Amino acid sequence: MDIKRYLPVLNWLPSYGRSQATSDLVAAVIVTVMLIPQSLAYALLAGLPAQVGLYASILPLIVYAVFGTSRTLSVGPVAVASLMTAAALAPLADVGTPEYVAGAILLAVMSGLMLMAMGLMRLGFLANFLSHPVISGFITASGIVIAASQLKHLFGIPASGHNLLEIIHSLVQSIDQINLATLAIGAGALVFLLLARRYLKTWLMAAGLPSRMADIVTKTAPILAVLVTTVVAWQLDLGAAGVRLVGSVPAGLPELTLPSLDWELWQQLAVSALLISVVGFVESVSVGQTLAAKRRQRIDPDQELVGLGAANLSAGLSGGMPVTGGFSRSVVNYDAGAETPAAGAYTAVGIALATLFLTPAIAYLPQATLAATIIVAVSTLIDLPALGRTWRYSRPDFGAMLATILATLVHSVEAGIIAGVALSIGLFLYRTSRPHSAVVGRVPGTEHFRNVLRHEVELCPKVTFLRVDESLYFANARFLEERVMDLVSEEPELKHLVLVCPAVNLIDASALESLEAINERLGDAGVTLHLSEVKGPVMDRLKRTDLLAKLSGEVFLSTFEAWQRLIGNRVPQRIPV
Amino acid sequence: MDIKRYLPVLNWLPSYGRSQATSDLVAAVIVTVMLIPQSLAYALLAGLPAQVGLYASILPLIVYAVFGTSRTLSVGPVAVASLMTAAALAPLADVGTPEYVAGAILLAVMSGLMLMAMGLMRLGFLANFLSHPVISGFITASGIVIAASQLKHLFGIPASGHNLLEIIHSLVQSIDQINLATLAIGAGALVFLLLARRYLKTWLMAAGLPSRMADIVTKTAPILAVLVTTVVAWQLDLGAAGVRLVGSVPAGLPELTLPSLDWELWQQLAVSALLISVVGFVESVSVGQTLAAKRRQRIDPDQELVGLGAANLSAGLSGGMPVTGGFSRSVVNYDAGAETPAAGAYTAVGIALATLFLTPAIAYLPQATLAATIIVAVSTLIDLPALGRTWRYSRPDFGAMLATILATLVHSVEAGIIAGVALSIGLFLYRTSRPHSAVVGRVPGTEHFRNVLRHEVELCPKVTFLRVDESLYFANARFLEERVMDLVSEEPELKHLVLVCPAVNLIDASALESLEAINERLGDAGVTLHLSEVKGPVMDRLKRTDLLAKLSGEVFLSTFEAWQRLIGNRVPQRIPV
Repeated sequence: MDIKRYLPVLNWLPSYGRSQATSDLVAAVIVTVMLIPQSLAYALLAGLPAQVGLYASILPLIVYAVFGTSRTLSVGPVAVASLMTAAALAPLADVGTPEYVAGAILLAVMSGLMLMAMGLMRLGFLANFLSHPVISGFITASGIVIAASQLKHLFGIPASGHNLLEIIHSLVQSIDQINLATLAIGAGALVFLLLARRYLKTWLMAAGLPSRMADIVTKTAPILAVLVTTVVAWQLDLGAAGVRLVGSVPAGLPELTLPSLDWELWQQLAVSALLISVVGFVESVSVGQTLAAKRRQRIDPDQELVGLGAANLSAGLSGGMPVTGGFSRSVVNYDAGAETPAAGAYTAVGIALATLFLTPAIAYLPQATLAATIIVAVSTLIDLPALGRTWRYSRPDFGAMLATILATLVHSVEAGIIAGVALSIGLFLYRTSRPHSAVVGRVPGTEHFRNVLRHEVELCPKVTFLRVDESLYFANARFLEERVMDLVSEEPELKHLVLVCPAVNLIDASALESLEAINERLGDAGVTLHLSEVKGPVMDRLKRTDLLAKLSGEVFLSTFEAWQRLIGNRVPQRIPV
Repeated sequence: MDIKRYLPVLNWLPSYGRSQATSDLVAAVIVTVMLIPQSLAYALLAGLPAQVGLYASILPLIVYAVFGTSRTLSVGPVAVASLMTAAALAPLADVGTPEYVAGAILLAVMSGLMLMAMGLMRLGFLANFLSHPVISGFITASGIVIAASQLKHLFGIPASGHNLLEIIHSLVQSIDQINLATLAIGAGALVFLLLARRYLKTWLMAAGLPSRMADIVTKTAPILAVLVTTVVAWQLDLGAAGVRLVGSVPAGLPELTLPSLDWELWQQLAVSALLISVVGFVESVSVGQTLAAKRRQRIDPDQELVGLGAANLSAGLSGGMPVTGGFSRSVVNYDAGAETPAAGAYTAVGIALATLFLTPAIAYLPQATLAATIIVAVSTLIDLPALGRTWRYSRPDFGAMLATILATLVHSVEAGIIAGVALSIGLFLYRTSRPHSAVVGRVPGTEHFRNVLRHEVELCPKVTFLRVDESLYFANARFLEERVMDLVSEEPELKHLVLVCPAVNLIDASALESLEAINERLGDAGVTLHLSEVKGPVMDRLKRTDLLAKLSGEVFLSTFEAWQRLIGNRVPQRIPV
């Protein structure tokens, strides 16, 4: 049982049969065709040689098949992690230097170790602090930055920068150096990919292909762009015409690579590695859970940390860049019928074969083609209407989302995440520090109590029922004191105050002091303090204090019980809404 | 109306009469007698010349009387703020240098400006994030550090350090240099003060004094120690015997002092000034609220920020150190009958007279006497049993308290506060990220629903009522998804799931996404999702989304309504506890 938890491969491998193998093989072929251009493109995006992307698509896939819990997640290089890798390395080394490559490899190793440690310590819940608006805003902003960063490859001009302002500034300065052959290749590929995404599925379905199959073939369009532009570049010798090609890629499988042991470098990369880990984990888990739920399977977030960590560690040790579960590839893998993580292992074999035999061809691949595939891929990540939806639902969530987007666009991906998380935690604390509370009355003829301002309820001037809609803790304890004392000063006839506590999930030590103070001050004012609907866990804790002994009134199981005892048959006052 | 809010003096001055003036004058005389040794002692504690303490007890009291809202708060130098001042200045200048004094004055000015800005921006609620255990732990630890720091004056040896370890290390190294005359004075004063605190009140009451009067006289014992040891030091010429005296203090009122405009110094002191401001504010407001409640008065925390800020600004501009409302002095002021802030203004006159006429005598006052008064004063702040009480009530609160104490003792006052606040916020987030939830059933014969594990309730296998005991937000949204899916996989007969939401005070955008996912997944599993007891503000917000349209089930006003609709008269199953 326990060993299956840490080696999820044991859950499916012993019963692995021919029909599953067939499904997995078909899916693997399709994903391989999709992954070859992606590996090359994301290496380019990260500023790394092409083979670093290929290496990250071999061993990590096999390792994830052993340790991962998702049946259909497709692990490998992804856009956002590649952008974060480039942003992390920019201040430390120049693109193209051995130090830069070593930094990327170290990032994969560190990220792997961090993820595994978090998994073994069951810290998966930490990822929950990346709220949905922050993730959504971050991915949108990253998509914009990534697309902008690829324009230089499309135009064949030099440019740099890791936020939108820097990139635009840099592009504008060298816009006069446009290479027309590069632009022709890039724009051609871009137009083809956009048209394919828009119309190919319809054409294929009109040609008789079933919808799912048409979908899958559409998603492999980039390989066609790669093939055609590679052949064109080779035949027309576009390299000599100033079109930047991928260039010579060493043939052969990756070798064991030991990470740098430069302690200073580890320290410099620590924050980046942590953010790459957490963002990659969140992305993977969201995709994995969505796909698992469709087949009534479960994934185990803590074991996913271990699986992704092992995958990253193996990426680094085999000379690859950081990896995670990619959204579009995983969906294709699922739709193509992958049944077990063996599909991932077969994909690894496909990429290994490509590394062994296709590298001479890859040398002629124009970088502009890869840039076009990246731009088309990330354009699906950009979801600006989400800003409007979030604005309508919740201003604080909108604020966190906007802060994330702006910080990412004008400063850096790291600043974006940190600003978003800090702001969403801050806003949550602010909201809970000013809790909603309501005077409630009895819904006539029932045992149910609702807000006097919203419902037509019965009241009694001598007894006030105050419902507090928040856990009581240090940030709002004083707020409660003020609310109660205000209430008492407004109701001269008041004899009993019942604090209705179904929403109080916690009373911490600060709030306990406040309750004691309230009890004492109400006592001085001749008002008896009662509690009702105190939750079990809260009551257990209060029993360990002397509040209950000091309490001037009683603790009622239900608010209706308090009503019966304190008001009984006296005719209460009916309040219209 | 509004002008009275910003100038609270207008609330009492127009109706100020003779009887109030008499009460205020009596209180002012007593507080002056208490404040003279305290001003000198806290200046010594902060490493400042004696007059800096006296100056901080003149103008700030008058300014607070105009802008403060507490009728009885006694503003001036206090122990904890003095320790924090010393800790802030230690890395920047040597004790006794003009730079050190200028730093203290700048701290008062910065603290004043920060407090006033926070008051005008209505940021008083920020102080709530200092939880009770953190404040309590911080004051205990500060008391220990302060007492330890005064031992050098008691023994007449050189020592330094701003945390307990440094102080003890420093004391041990110079313990062989003890000055016996100093020790005699210091130990004598200490024993006298301790005996006075223990027995003087009883003696005075036995001598016929009323209890409150005896209490007040007891608290002025330090002035007696000051008088006696000053006379002894003068007559025996103890200065020549190596006993360190306060030394010459310039006579006369303070002059306008402009703060340093060194921008770098402002930056270096910013964090310290902020912490001194917040801690001072919290201390003042707690004392002020306690005393105000006894007389059914209110204080306005945001205006208190303005009042304390103005007091600090005036302290700095008149060459004084940071000030705040002191606990023991305020209690004496209250007990002595002060009715309005005019008592503070009269006290200021008393201190001004002392500054004009008593400085020649103060020159002979042994520092050991002041050290003894500080030790006795702070010993009342040290509350170690609070650790035990907090441990019994709540482990997380205990953790925050212990972290605050340890960080203060072994590192610094600033580290103590920051560690305490960070840990208490972190623990709160952790708790809310793993919310309590309970399957509930109907308490037989009522409309009330309670936890099946704690109460004997009625259930129906086709309908599960799940009560979620926490607001739903990003940190726990995924947790809810997992809880619901686990529940559904355990109950094969389940047809309806009712989420009982009286404790859900907020559903943020992340939790909304989770609810939509839950609704969809339950739909796939043939289970209908209902909501009950959704609070008004939460419902208002849900109405702005399409969740309610997509919801497979209904939203019930009460859980009993859901029970009647979904179960009706079918005989439910009774579950024993």
